[in-house]
Amino acid sequence: MKIGIVGLGLIGGSLGLDLKAQGHEILGVSRQATTCQTALDKGVVDRASTDLSLLAAAEIVIICTPIGAIAPTLAKLVPHLQTETIVTDVGSVKQPIVEACTYLWSNFVGGHPMAGNTNQGIHAAQTKLFTGAAYVFTPTEKTPTALVEKLASLARSLDTITYICPPEVHDRAVAWISHLPVMVSASLIQSCLQESNSQVLQLAQKLASSGFCDTSRVGGGNPELGMMMAKYNRQALLRSLKQYRQNLDEIIIQIEQENWDNLEQVLEINQQARPKFLN
Amino acid sequence: MKIGIVGLGLIGGSLGLDLKAQGHEILGVSRQATTCQTALDKGVVDRASTDLSLLAAAEIVIICTPIGAIAPTLAKLVPHLQTETIVTDVGSVKQPIVEACTYLWSNFVGGHPMAGNTNQGIHAAQTKLFTGAAYVFTPTEKTPTALVEKLASLARSLDTITYICPPEVHDRAVAWISHLPVMVSASLIQSCLQESNSQVLQLAQKLASSGFCDTSRVGGGNPELGMMMAKYNRQALLRSLKQYRQNLDEIIIQIEQENWDNLEQVLEINQQARPKFLN
Repeated sequence: MKIGIVGLGLIGGSLGLDLKAQGHEILGVSRQATTCQTALDKGVVDRASTDLSLLAAAEIVIICTPIGAIAPTLAKLVPHLQTETIVTDVGSVKQPIVEACTYLWSNFVGGHPMAGNTNQGIHAAQTKLFTGAAYVFTPTEKTPTALVEKLASLARSLDTITYICPPEVHDRAVAWISHLPVMVSASLIQSCLQESNSQVLQLAQKLASSGFCDTSRVGGGNPELGMMMAKYNRQALLRSLKQYRQNLDEIIIQIEQENWDNLEQVLEINQQARPKFLN
Repeated sequence: MKIGIVGLGLIGGSLGLDLKAQGHEILGVSRQATTCQTALDKGVVDRASTDLSLLAAAEIVIICTPIGAIAPTLAKLVPHLQTETIVTDVGSVKQPIVEACTYLWSNFVGGHPMAGNTNQGIHAAQTKLFTGAAYVFTPTEKTPTALVEKLASLARSLDTITYICPPEVHDRAVAWISHLPVMVSASLIQSCLQESNSQVLQLAQKLASSGFCDTSRVGGGNPELGMMMAKYNRQALLRSLKQYRQNLDEIIIQIEQENWDNLEQVLEINQQARPKFLN
């Protein structure tokens, strides 16, 4: 199959490597000629160009740009596509993208391969990045089932575990397990930095170990990515954040009122519930 | 040196193993005769008893019971001690313990070896548990320096990194980096469980990966330990929790008001600050 990839970074490049290895013909488009050359040198793509017209022959196009560029990229891509070409994306938020993109192209299916690491760019591209990862597709009520099946089958060929659900269900789910943790963790680092007693702050920095390290990890990650999550999944994230604040307030009240039995009960429920979130 | 250990669990047992290996004579006291026998069999102690009078000969006594039992144990121990015996503890909160214990015994120095794992009991005791860990001592203004030095020197012989500070500085520091993360993380699990749409909750559980796993880890830990932290470090923890809530509110406001530049700035400050907490 001829597969087009727009945006040859960590995700686009890694998809290219694995799909090309399976025998697909990979057509890659990047804004930068140097990235195109690197993609060719690394064996990520068969052909590369800075011009979207390269994708005229593609049966499937995967848009792997940053979230904000997905719909604008599709708008520029549309004049070059054949009527039956399926377009998908890899954005970590789905509802606003699916809304904009299905309007531009009826054969669009939102996608979200849930893999990655802190590296960026074509040089970070690696084989088997997606092995064992979740890959979510988010058709609307109008999306032809055959398109979803074709993409899901391609995703499963990368040894991913595929899920199919409406865009808003995806966005609410990732708000809980991905975007809320970033804000919770960011607030932790922020609050520690407010300590006005320098002896306490310095000792805290010395004594911090695995508990602090783990709880603060995602809050100390890529600032642009964190901001983008909030920007594009604003509604679902605010919903989760407000529920979170309510639970935090309940814990504060239990400690203020010294309801130790209640607090221990809450912590027991958590201890029992957490394994359901670990696969 | 003759060293007494009261409470032969993970911490007491592991201290016994390493100190005995150094040639000290270890006298162990546990409430349970079976624990005494196991401690003898495992080579944790040279002599063991369920009776505190065994410790009459000790130069240093380390109380390794749960936090709530430290002061009551010292009260029972006092009649058996020689005047010059130094007593210390291993509790994770220091101010209330130091207050109660220095009143009972003027040669008391609060201590907190910051090592451990999720296992409990004498069977979990292991050698070199403390290697590389922080070990904090919290003398008051009245504590003779020689006592602190003697304990710190013993702690350093276990390859720990020792810190000396007032009890309240310790408690505020650990509130930030140990107790606050537990409550922040616990509130995260709690809030996810409030999701009323079962399709969203189930998908969230399936999609949760390393970010959620890390951020929720300490909030899904031992409920009794979490409650005890809050109970004994209530004041410092509430102070940290209220600052945290303020920073969380600021992040919520930034997202509500779509102040994306401000949000990104906050996340940038976090990204730069976090490494100062990682040793």
